[in-house]
Amino acid sequence: MAKEPKQLDELFHDTLKDIYYAEKKILSALPKMAKAAHNDDLRAAFEKHKTETEGQIDRLEQVFQLIEQKPQGKKCAAIEGILEEGQEIIKEYKGSPALDAGLVSAAQAVEHYEIARYGTLRTWAEELGLNQAMKLLQQTLDQEEATDRALTELAESVVNQEAQAEAA
Amino acid sequence: MAKEPKQLDELFHDTLKDIYYAEKKILSALPKMAKAAHNDDLRAAFEKHKTETEGQIDRLEQVFQLIEQKPQGKKCAAIEGILEEGQEIIKEYKGSPALDAGLVSAAQAVEHYEIARYGTLRTWAEELGLNQAMKLLQQTLDQEEATDRALTELAESVVNQEAQAEAA
Repeated sequence: MAKEPKQLDELFHDTLKDIYYAEKKILSALPKMAKAAHNDDLRAAFEKHKTETEGQIDRLEQVFQLIEQKPQGKKCAAIEGILEEGQEIIKEYKGSPALDAGLVSAAQAVEHYEIARYGTLRTWAEELGLNQAMKLLQQTLDQEEATDRALTELAESVVNQEAQAEAA
Repeated sequence: MAKEPKQLDELFHDTLKDIYYAEKKILSALPKMAKAAHNDDLRAAFEKHKTETEGQIDRLEQVFQLIEQKPQGKKCAAIEGILEEGQEIIKEYKGSPALDAGLVSAAQAVEHYEIARYGTLRTWAEELGLNQAMKLLQQTLDQEEATDRALTELAESVVNQEAQAEAA
């Protein structure tokens, strides 16, 4: 790594620690979101994403290895705030037909945070000539984008109509 | 509004307050990001987005009016966290050739938060039959997505190469 521009390396490493911390927090939030969901498809989506998140953490550990660093998290204020808002929705909309719509919204805020971070990391990996890391980050980015699309479909086809039907 | 399902209405209103608070925070963060930027194109992008953000706040106020509510913010922990990370980058990478890359990364995290929120609000407005609100939210969503794409292009074409060239 000695020949690479040191400071972009550091930014890459810092951001890797940020998303590693975030993924671990997301991993522990997903079972709570699955448990709160009324809709079976939504619960299944959260459970599926938990398995995917485990794979994403594994890929991040491979990236740490590729840059010869120990996998290590760094407190990420953004994900703390995003997940806090999700917990508020679970509390404030408990028993409401709109709860599932709120859960999808919270999950999409999480997905978009990840999409932003993985997009950035993938671009930097490419600039730094870290081709294997770039491929791993791209794999996760593709997965996050697919999860976001699946959540949009769920929201449009099921969750919002449920919220309306139950309230009618 | 009396015939609409009340609880999805409330979720819509709560989320509107969340993004209204967030937009005002973003409006005050953008001049600091513009001031910190080394690259002229990046600084211009932040300045342009400040003007756009003023228009987005105005559109949100129109949406509040359409649902017969006063424009009012509600503390948004997510945007606080996201902007806090941006401020850390400004502090930690001051004078570094990687600063601009970090600023783009921070700005894209903000954009993605907004994309998630406006996407959700637009879908809910449609479900609630709030067609005029839906159009206003869609306008802002399109603008945020365009800003995110412009930042990606900036990152790929200028900022990262600068970070490398100056460090070489």
